[in-house]
Amino acid sequence: MATEIRQDKVSKNWIIYAPSRTQRPSSFRQEGPEAEGLPDHEPSCPFCKGNEDQLPDILMELQNPNITEWQTRVVPNKFPALTQEGDTRRHLEGIYLTMPGHGVHEVIIETPRHNRQPSRMSLEEVGAIVETYHRRYIDLLYRHQSMMALIFRNHGPKAGTSLIHPHSQLVVTSVVPHDVRWREQKEQRYFDDWGRCVVCEVVEHELQIHERVIFENESFVAFVPFAAAVPFESWIVPKRHEADFGDISDPEKEDFAAALRDMLRRLREKLNDPSYNYLINTAARHKASEPHLHWYLQIQPRLTTSAGFEMGSGMRINPSLPEEDAAYLNSDDAA
Amino acid sequence: MATEIRQDKVSKNWIIYAPSRTQRPSSFRQEGPEAEGLPDHEPSCPFCKGNEDQLPDILMELQNPNITEWQTRVVPNKFPALTQEGDTRRHLEGIYLTMPGHGVHEVIIETPRHNRQPSRMSLEEVGAIVETYHRRYIDLLYRHQSMMALIFRNHGPKAGTSLIHPHSQLVVTSVVPHDVRWREQKEQRYFDDWGRCVVCEVVEHELQIHERVIFENESFVAFVPFAAAVPFESWIVPKRHEADFGDISDPEKEDFAAALRDMLRRLREKLNDPSYNYLINTAARHKASEPHLHWYLQIQPRLTTSAGFEMGSGMRINPSLPEEDAAYLNSDDAA
Repeated sequence: MATEIRQDKVSKNWIIYAPSRTQRPSSFRQEGPEAEGLPDHEPSCPFCKGNEDQLPDILMELQNPNITEWQTRVVPNKFPALTQEGDTRRHLEGIYLTMPGHGVHEVIIETPRHNRQPSRMSLEEVGAIVETYHRRYIDLLYRHQSMMALIFRNHGPKAGTSLIHPHSQLVVTSVVPHDVRWREQKEQRYFDDWGRCVVCEVVEHELQIHERVIFENESFVAFVPFAAAVPFESWIVPKRHEADFGDISDPEKEDFAAALRDMLRRLREKLNDPSYNYLINTAARHKASEPHLHWYLQIQPRLTTSAGFEMGSGMRINPSLPEEDAAYLNSDDAA
Repeated sequence: MATEIRQDKVSKNWIIYAPSRTQRPSSFRQEGPEAEGLPDHEPSCPFCKGNEDQLPDILMELQNPNITEWQTRVVPNKFPALTQEGDTRRHLEGIYLTMPGHGVHEVIIETPRHNRQPSRMSLEEVGAIVETYHRRYIDLLYRHQSMMALIFRNHGPKAGTSLIHPHSQLVVTSVVPHDVRWREQKEQRYFDDWGRCVVCEVVEHELQIHERVIFENESFVAFVPFAAAVPFESWIVPKRHEADFGDISDPEKEDFAAALRDMLRRLREKLNDPSYNYLINTAARHKASEPHLHWYLQIQPRLTTSAGFEMGSGMRINPSLPEEDAAYLNSDDAA
């Protein structure tokens, strides 16, 4: 059976589509029942109320006026990948470059309730998560040695999460990661050729053909990208040209929360609560005003396993066509 | 606790070392008992003898003179990622680039015996695998539209394998994958700066300090790289400068088989048969004579899960220090 190779217009990565390797989009529906029957409060969970002595510190809280308690809470990661120790100076160890693991690694506890995943939250609750992302991002990115702030969420056992209590993470690095540099360079070249931001171009095209769009409101659009790397990948993109997540406006925050909530809800309903990762692709600090960059949130469900071919080539093999994934996410069956 | 960031000297990728996230190297030892009790012949396995009618075709066999039957067998992948249909012409679909999935996807059945993993094979048996790799590589790479041949092996459920019967795979692409281009560019820049192949430099240095070396014979050295991306990653590198796997000599094949067998045996013994991927990083076809490229085999055990941070940054977080991994692979305990 013939297969197809598509190029991601932003990163210029090639993705192979081999639909003969699977059946229908619905075959990705998870077999295990959705994690239910979890308690609202779990006595041994460090993120639950009453266990504050297990937290290294509390860095910030958003209050919930309705319940006179915290709604979201930001704490240091107890096993941080990067810390405030050392500095950003590189040195040689033999012939190799090395540096201290200087940076920040925080956890955003998204709710006091142990069993309340964002896919089941109210718009206000998801809004509080977005507001917390934004405040920490602004607060941390403009510190002296920060080069890049990455906000991400790991959901489910296949997505590398170790704690069930709903949470996201924020890592600030003092180097610009190579994938970020790679994307920057490709986007700059596109801008130099065409005089336009490539992401603006993609958004305009997707809205026009409306074949892969899942959700739209005034300031955001969510769609399965033409060259999705994995089944049911989706992007949530601001319609306004905006390089830096830090520039999101208050009305945009509300629209962003609505889009995010809708997409997570669809994944839960249509695929029976799959593991997923999402992250906010945004400009590195000193690129925040570039006309060729455009931030977006990228969701990748963990329904396939990448293996030796992907490791050696960087090309993903996706058994599912983006148009069919989009149709399934838009359909009325399952749920 | 302080962490460290190291740069891979070949790809220039940054890797974060956060040892506080784990305990000792031995904690990566797999809990489940090694897959034992498998039969030598499994009636329902398409790669076992007697089930040839389940194979799409037989493309090549290496005979075993001792047992008057085949030792290795090459067959088309039944669910290929790439096929011989179509051509390599790109076209636009709306604003996006796309092309037929033109290429080759073959399976190398490594032994007639269902339960005989390479880590338990004789040197002759592993030698037959290497010989098969080489013959198919040479045969396929120089066809009209081939740009790159990737040989890889997925072992165990976490490494994305679906069939237990020992096998490797070979994919020939008609595009140069971006990770291969990326590495090429970095290696070329190094050569332009220093006038030397960076991999030759690394091999010389590792042999000199001998802190991460695991195995050495006349033509190959195996070591945990200074900036290993995952716990117990290792590289098997020809000492002679050689851009293209296709240029391996007969004596080198034997030494390569010995190194590969030793490394897989150590993984099985020390870590209790972990899932792993390996692949041969080699030059794209038209770069085969470049003085700045140098092929090597890269093994990555699947002991950790990459998550949202890795997805957004391309930076891996490795909880284990390469020197400690090397010491553990060299130690006498466990096994």
